[in-house]
Amino acid sequence: MQVDINCDMGEGYGRWTLGDDAAMMEVITSANVACGFHGGDPNIMVETARMAKEKGVSVGAHPGFNDLWGFGRRVIRGDTMAEIERMIAYQIGAMQACASLAGHKVTHVKAHGALGNVTNEEEDFALALGRAIKAVDPSLIYVTMPGLPTERVADKLGLAAAAEVFADRTYEDDGQLMSRKKPGSVLHDADEAARRVLAMVRDQTITSASGKRIPARIDTICVHGDGATAVAMARRVREVLEADGVAIRPFGRR
Amino acid sequence: MQVDINCDMGEGYGRWTLGDDAAMMEVITSANVACGFHGGDPNIMVETARMAKEKGVSVGAHPGFNDLWGFGRRVIRGDTMAEIERMIAYQIGAMQACASLAGHKVTHVKAHGALGNVTNEEEDFALALGRAIKAVDPSLIYVTMPGLPTERVADKLGLAAAAEVFADRTYEDDGQLMSRKKPGSVLHDADEAARRVLAMVRDQTITSASGKRIPARIDTICVHGDGATAVAMARRVREVLEADGVAIRPFGRR
Amino acid sequence: MQVDINCDMGEGYGRWTLGDDAAMMEVITSANVACGFHGGDPNIMVETARMAKEKGVSVGAHPGFNDLWGFGRRVIRGDTMAEIERMIAYQIGAMQACASLAGHKVTHVKAHGALGNVTNEEEDFALALGRAIKAVDPSLIYVTMPGLPTERVADKLGLAAAAEVFADRTYEDDGQLMSRKKPGSVLHDADEAARRVLAMVRDQTITSASGKRIPARIDTICVHGDGATAVAMARRVREVLEADGVAIRPFGRR
Amino acid sequence: MQVDINCDMGEGYGRWTLGDDAAMMEVITSANVACGFHGGDPNIMVETARMAKEKGVSVGAHPGFNDLWGFGRRVIRGDTMAEIERMIAYQIGAMQACASLAGHKVTHVKAHGALGNVTNEEEDFALALGRAIKAVDPSLIYVTMPGLPTERVADKLGLAAAAEVFADRTYEDDGQLMSRKKPGSVLHDADEAARRVLAMVRDQTITSASGKRIPARIDTICVHGDGATAVAMARRVREVLEADGVAIRPFGRR
Repeated sequence: MQVDINCDMGEGYGRWTLGDDAAMMEVITSANVACGFHGGDPNIMVETARMAKEKGVSVGAHPGFNDLWGFGRRVIRGDTMAEIERMIAYQIGAMQACASLAGHKVTHVKAHGALGNVTNEEEDFALALGRAIKAVDPSLIYVTMPGLPTERVADKLGLAAAAEVFADRTYEDDGQLMSRKKPGSVLHDADEAARRVLAMVRDQTITSASGKRIPARIDTICVHGDGATAVAMARRVREVLEADGVAIRPFGRR
Repeated sequence: MQVDINCDMGEGYGRWTLGDDAAMMEVITSANVACGFHGGDPNIMVETARMAKEKGVSVGAHPGFNDLWGFGRRVIRGDTMAEIERMIAYQIGAMQACASLAGHKVTHVKAHGALGNVTNEEEDFALALGRAIKAVDPSLIYVTMPGLPTERVADKLGLAAAAEVFADRTYEDDGQLMSRKKPGSVLHDADEAARRVLAMVRDQTITSASGKRIPARIDTICVHGDGATAVAMARRVREVLEADGVAIRPFGRR
Repeated sequence: MQVDINCDMGEGYGRWTLGDDAAMMEVITSANVACGFHGGDPNIMVETARMAKEKGVSVGAHPGFNDLWGFGRRVIRGDTMAEIERMIAYQIGAMQACASLAGHKVTHVKAHGALGNVTNEEEDFALALGRAIKAVDPSLIYVTMPGLPTERVADKLGLAAAAEVFADRTYEDDGQLMSRKKPGSVLHDADEAARRVLAMVRDQTITSASGKRIPARIDTICVHGDGATAVAMARRVREVLEADGVAIRPFGRR
Repeated sequence: MQVDINCDMGEGYGRWTLGDDAAMMEVITSANVACGFHGGDPNIMVETARMAKEKGVSVGAHPGFNDLWGFGRRVIRGDTMAEIERMIAYQIGAMQACASLAGHKVTHVKAHGALGNVTNEEEDFALALGRAIKAVDPSLIYVTMPGLPTERVADKLGLAAAAEVFADRTYEDDGQLMSRKKPGSVLHDADEAARRVLAMVRDQTITSASGKRIPARIDTICVHGDGATAVAMARRVREVLEADGVAIRPFGRR
C-alpha cells in the first residue's frame, strides 16, 4: 500500500514569504508550486523546484486566478472557459520552464484556492483545466477529488489522475469539502488528522461529517503549508501512515 | 538570397489593443509575441500564435521587464543576473504553452524594449537571456544584433542565432542603435527605409549614420508594429526586397 | 430644465489608449475618471483632470475592482464589505490627489463596470460605496440609479446623489439595465438613443423594454466613451436635448 | 530636547505580512505607511492608520516605485519627473483617504526604498517628491536627510521638513548612507546603535564612518521594522534616549 503526500509550496512573492517550505520538503513527496498569478514568482518557482529535486519530491504546477492581492482565494467571474483554459496553460508552461532551470520536471497540475474550488464544483471549469493540461503536455497528471467534476473530466479526456483527500478538512455527503465557515470543517489536532487519514487510505473511503461512507480511490494526501502547526501535522500524518506500513511515494512514480 | 521580416506582436493587454496585427501578419515571416510582463496576456498570446500558424508565420517569445505600466520600456535595476534569467525563462515557458494551445511552436526568442537594450549593451544581461533560452529549450533561436553582446553570447553558448537589423532606425559606429532622442534616429519614409534595408541585405553590411560600414550577417529585418504607418512601411520593405529577388522566409526554416 | 452628460474617461493604461477623450470632453459636462485599478494611471488621471478643467467639465472618481486584465468587468467575490469600502476609498483619495495636481477638484463618485453592477444590485455593496464616499469627503456626490440600492443608500447616508440613466441601454421592469447578452439591450442608432433620452428627461420617467413607465428623477445621462460611434452618439444626444431647450450643465454645480 | 522615532509600517500585501507592526507601534511616534505600490494595500493601510491613531502615533505616506515584486527596492528609470510627481501624488492621496477611514490624518511623507535613495541623490527626484507633496497638501511634512537634495528642496519649496538619521546605518563623508554592500554599513548591535543615536541627537551631528563630523538638524530617528531583532533594537534606542532625558514625540506635533 502506498500514497503520496502533497503540499502547496512556493507561495511567497518577492520580499514576502509564506510557510516553512524547507522543513515541509522533508515530509512531502509532491509539491504544488504557485505559478506567479496568486503567489510565487520566477525566483521562488525555480528555488522551490530546486529544493524539490534535491529531496526527491515531485513538482506540479499550481495555477490560480490572477489575483495576488486576494492570494487566489477570490472567485473571479466573467471569463469564458476558453479564457480560463489559456490562463491555466500559461501558468503550466511558466512552471515547466522554471522547473527546467532547476533541472527538474513538472509531473502534475493542481488548481489553487478559488480556482480549485470551482473546478471541483463546476464541470466546465474542470474541463478548462483538463484541456489546458492536455494541450500543454498530455502526460501531466491531473490532481482530482474523488467523485467530483475533476475526476470525471480527467477520465473523459483520458488524462492520468491522482485523487486527493485533505488531511485537515471534513467532508459533506456529496464529497465536497465542508465550507471553512462551518464549525468543525477544519481539524486542528495532528493526531486526529493522522488517524483519519490512515482510515481513509486503508479503506479507500472518505467518511463525511455526517458519517456517510464514500468509496474513493486515494492517491495523495493534501497537507497545508501555512500556519504555525502545519509542518508538525504533516509530520504526524506521515509517521502514522508509515507506522502502519503505508509507503509514502510520489504519485508521479507509479 | 533570403531574409526574414520580424515584428513585435500581441502587444495589447486585456481590453487594450495595439497595432494592426492581422494586417501585419500578412507581411512578416516571424512574430515576436509579448509574454504578459510588458504587454500580452494568455488570450492575446494564444490568438496571436493562432493567426501566425494560419499565415505560416514563425512565433517567438518576446520577454520584457515586468512592467505593464511602462510597457517594458523602463529599465529596472536591482535584480541579480540569475533573477533576470529566471524571469526570462518564465516568459518563454508561458509562451510555449500558449503556442501549444494554438497548435503552433515557439522557435525563437527576442528580448523586448528596455530588456532588449540592456542585453545588447551589457554582456551579463545577454548571458542571462542566453542561459534562459538554453535551459528551457536549446533549440530555440536567439535573436541577436550584429557585433553586439547578444551575438557574442549566442556564439559562446552554442545557440543558434538570427542577426537582426532595424528597418526604421539608424546606427552608431559601434553598431548600437542611435538613441531615439537624437534627431534622425528614426526613419519615417517607407521608401527610404526600404532602400536602406535592401542595401543592408544585399551587402550584408550596416552603414552607420556617420557613413561607417560594418560587415554584418543579416538574417532578419525588424519592422515596427505600432504607429499609423507601420503596416505600410513593412509592406514597402517587403516589396522592394522581393522585387530585387530576395526571398522572404522565416529564419526558423533555414 | 437641465441635465448633465457624463462619460467614463481616462480608461487607457500606460502605453494603451481607449476612446477619444479629447473629442468627448467637448460634449460632456462630467467625466468619471478611472483610478488605476481597472484602467487609468496617475499620468492619465492628471491629464484627464487637466483637460476637464480646461473645458469646464466636472471630474469624478470612477473606482473599479482591482482588475486591469479584466478592465474591471469581472466580478471578484470574496472580500468583506469593509474591504470593498477601503478599496473604494483608496481610489477616491488617489483621484483627489491627481485632480489637485491638475488644479481641479473631484466632485462625484461613480462605480465602474462589475463594481457598478453589484452596487446597483446588492445593497451591501451600495453601502460600502456610500461609506467610502462619506469617510473620504461627505460633500462628494454619489452617482446612483433610479429606484435601485445606490439611490436608497445615498438617501440613507445623507449623501448628495445624482441619478443616472444610460443613453444607449434598455431597461428591465425593475429599473435594472437589461443584460448586454439579451438582444436589443444596447442601442446603436444615435437618433433613436437621442429621442429616447429626451423623452426620459422631459418626463423624468424611464420606460422599460416591455413598456412599463418608471418615474425617476434624472440628473445625468451616461454616454459611452469607447467604440467607433461613441462621440457621434454623445453629440447627437446633446444636440437633441439642447434643441428642445434642455440646458446641459454639470450636476456638480446645482 | 526631543526627537521622533519613525518606522516603515504596513509593508505586507494581501495574504503576506512583514514585521511586527503591533509591537513596533508601542515604540515609535511616526509610522510611514506603504501605499500599495511596493507593499501595502487598502486594508493594511487603514488598519495601520487605525493602530497608529490608537497609540498616538503620527502617520505618513510612504510612496515607492510601482514594483510589488521588487518591494520598491529596484530603481525604475525612464519616467519624466512630471510622471514621478504624479505617481507620488497618487499614493499620498490614497493614503489620506485610508487615514480618513481610520479617523486619522496623514501628516508627513517619506519616500521608500529605491525612490527614497534617488530623492536623496538626485535633486530632480527630490523636486518631484516635493512638488507632489505641495500640490496635494502643502501642510504635509517632507521627511529629508541632512545636507542632501531632499533637505535643500524642502527649503526651496517652502515645505516643512523633518530631518532624519538612521539608527542602524553608517554614513559616508558626504552624508549619504553607506551602501548596504559595504562591510560595516549596517549595525546589528542594539546597544551600539542606541549609543550612536544618542550621540547624534545630543550633538545634532552625524559622524561618518571615517570619523568626519557633519552638523545636522535631527528631528527623527529611523528604525527598521523587519528582521528578527527590529523591535528589540527600536526599544533599546528609545530607552537610551529617554534615560538621557530626550523626549520622544512625533515631529508632527511641534
